[in-house]
Amino acid sequence: MVYRLIVAYDGSPFAGWQRQPGAVTVQATIEEALASIIGHRVPVVGAGRTDAGVHALGQVAHLEVEWPVEQRALVHGVNHHLPPAVRVLEARRATDGFHARKCALAKEYRYRTSRATVLSPFEAGTTLRVAPVDVEAMRAATRLLPGRHDFTAFALAGGAHARPFRRILGAEWREAGEVLELAIVGDGFLRGMVRSLVGTLLEVGSGRRSVEDFAELLGGRPRDAAGPTAPAHGLVLRRVFYEPCWLAPPPEG
Amino acid sequence: MVYRLIVAYDGSPFAGWQRQPGAVTVQATIEEALASIIGHRVPVVGAGRTDAGVHALGQVAHLEVEWPVEQRALVHGVNHHLPPAVRVLEARRATDGFHARKCALAKEYRYRTSRATVLSPFEAGTTLRVAPVDVEAMRAATRLLPGRHDFTAFALAGGAHARPFRRILGAEWREAGEVLELAIVGDGFLRGMVRSLVGTLLEVGSGRRSVEDFAELLGGRPRDAAGPTAPAHGLVLRRVFYEPCWLAPPPEG
Repeated sequence: MVYRLIVAYDGSPFAGWQRQPGAVTVQATIEEALASIIGHRVPVVGAGRTDAGVHALGQVAHLEVEWPVEQRALVHGVNHHLPPAVRVLEARRATDGFHARKCALAKEYRYRTSRATVLSPFEAGTTLRVAPVDVEAMRAATRLLPGRHDFTAFALAGGAHARPFRRILGAEWREAGEVLELAIVGDGFLRGMVRSLVGTLLEVGSGRRSVEDFAELLGGRPRDAAGPTAPAHGLVLRRVFYEPCWLAPPPEG
Repeated sequence: MVYRLIVAYDGSPFAGWQRQPGAVTVQATIEEALASIIGHRVPVVGAGRTDAGVHALGQVAHLEVEWPVEQRALVHGVNHHLPPAVRVLEARRATDGFHARKCALAKEYRYRTSRATVLSPFEAGTTLRVAPVDVEAMRAATRLLPGRHDFTAFALAGGAHARPFRRILGAEWREAGEVLELAIVGDGFLRGMVRSLVGTLLEVGSGRRSVEDFAELLGGRPRDAAGPTAPAHGLVLRRVFYEPCWLAPPPEG
C-alpha cells in the first residue's frame, strides 16, 4: 500500500532533497527515520528534487509498504527519529499507483526577499536582502510569465535541456511591509528555474534590465542571456497539487 | 551623547537579556560587539529584561558615549561582530536623558501558540503547540485584562512584590489558520507575567478554569492560585513605546 507524506524542512543543513553518496540529504534522512519505525529501508520518493539549501513547507513524498502502517507512527513516530530541521506534517493512505512526482499536476514555490536594512534572526535564514527595487517594473515582467514558454535561459548551467518547455499557471509578487515575495505556480520547473527567474526579475527591479528584454528571454535564449541565480535560502517549495482522487478514503477500521 | 538601538534576537541560546556572571546573555553579547567598534566597554541598558529563552523583535536599548558614533557603525559594524542570533535593526541619536527602561511608556509582547498537529521547523522555535481550545472562552477572559490590576497571582514565584500593580492597555488573541497569538500591551509587566497569563488563559481555553475564576485572579491572589508559566520560546518582546520627543533630529552635518 502507498502512503503520501507532507514534509517540511529547513534546507540549510542539507545537500538538497535527493539521496547522493557521502552527503546528508533530506530524502536519506527521512528514509533512515522511517526504517527505525517500519523495521527496514523503504525508498521515499519526493515530488520536487529541491536543491541544496532550498526549504520546503509542503513537499510531498510517497512510500510503498507491504503492510499497513498507522498514520500516527508515520507522523509522530518518524518525527521522533528525525532531526528538528525536518518534520512530517501529515501522512495519509493514497490509492495504488500514486507517485509523488509523476502524478503531480503543479507545484507552488515562494521566493522571499526583503528591503529591510537588517534582517532579524527569524527571517535571515529564509529571506534574501535586496536593495529598494521598482516593484511595478518587476510586476510588469512577472505578468508575462503565465503560459507555456521555453525556459532554456533560466535552466541551471550545464547543457541544453531536451524538453525546456514549462507552463506557468500563475506568478505574482506579494508585498507586506519590507517583504516582497514571489509566489509562482507551474506544471513543472527546470532545475534552478525559479531562482534564475528571481535573479533576472531583480535585475528588472534594479533597472539593469528592461521588461522587453525579459520578455525576449521567454522565447528560448541561452542561459547566459538571463540574470544570476538567486541564493537558495530564499526559496521554499510551498505546495504540490494533485487530483484529489489519489487520496484513499479515511483508514479502514 | 545617547543612542537608542532597536534590537532583535532569537532568545534560545541566551540566559536572558540581563548580564550575569558565567552566563551568555544578550546584553553582554551586545556590549562585547560594541566594544569592538568603539574601542572600550560601554553599558547597554535594555527596556525589558527578558528571561532566558524569550525572543525579541523590538527590544530597545540605550548607550551613552562621549563622542559621536556613526549610525552605520552602530548597525552594520556591531552586527558584523554579533552572532547571527542577535541583530541591531536600527540606531538613532536620542536626546540627553533618554533611558530605555525608565522612559518606556509601554511594551508590547506577543505569545504564539498553534493548534497544528506538527509544527514546521520554521515555527517550532517560536511557537507553543497546544491542543484545540475554546477560543471564545479565552477571549472572554482576555477582555477582562485592560485596566489596572494587582498581578501578584501572575508574578514569577519568589515572594511578594512590593508594587504588584500594572496597567494593561490592550490584549487580544489573533487567529490565523492554526496559529493563535496573544498580543498584549501594558505599562509594565512583572517577571514571568505574560507567560503566567498565557498558561492560565490556556486553562480557560481547555475548560479547566472558568472565566469567573480568571476574573478573581486579577484582584491580587497568591501565585499558586493561577495556572502554570507557559514556556519561554513562545514569547517575543515586540515593541517598546516612548514619547517621540526622545528621538533627536536627524544627525547634524
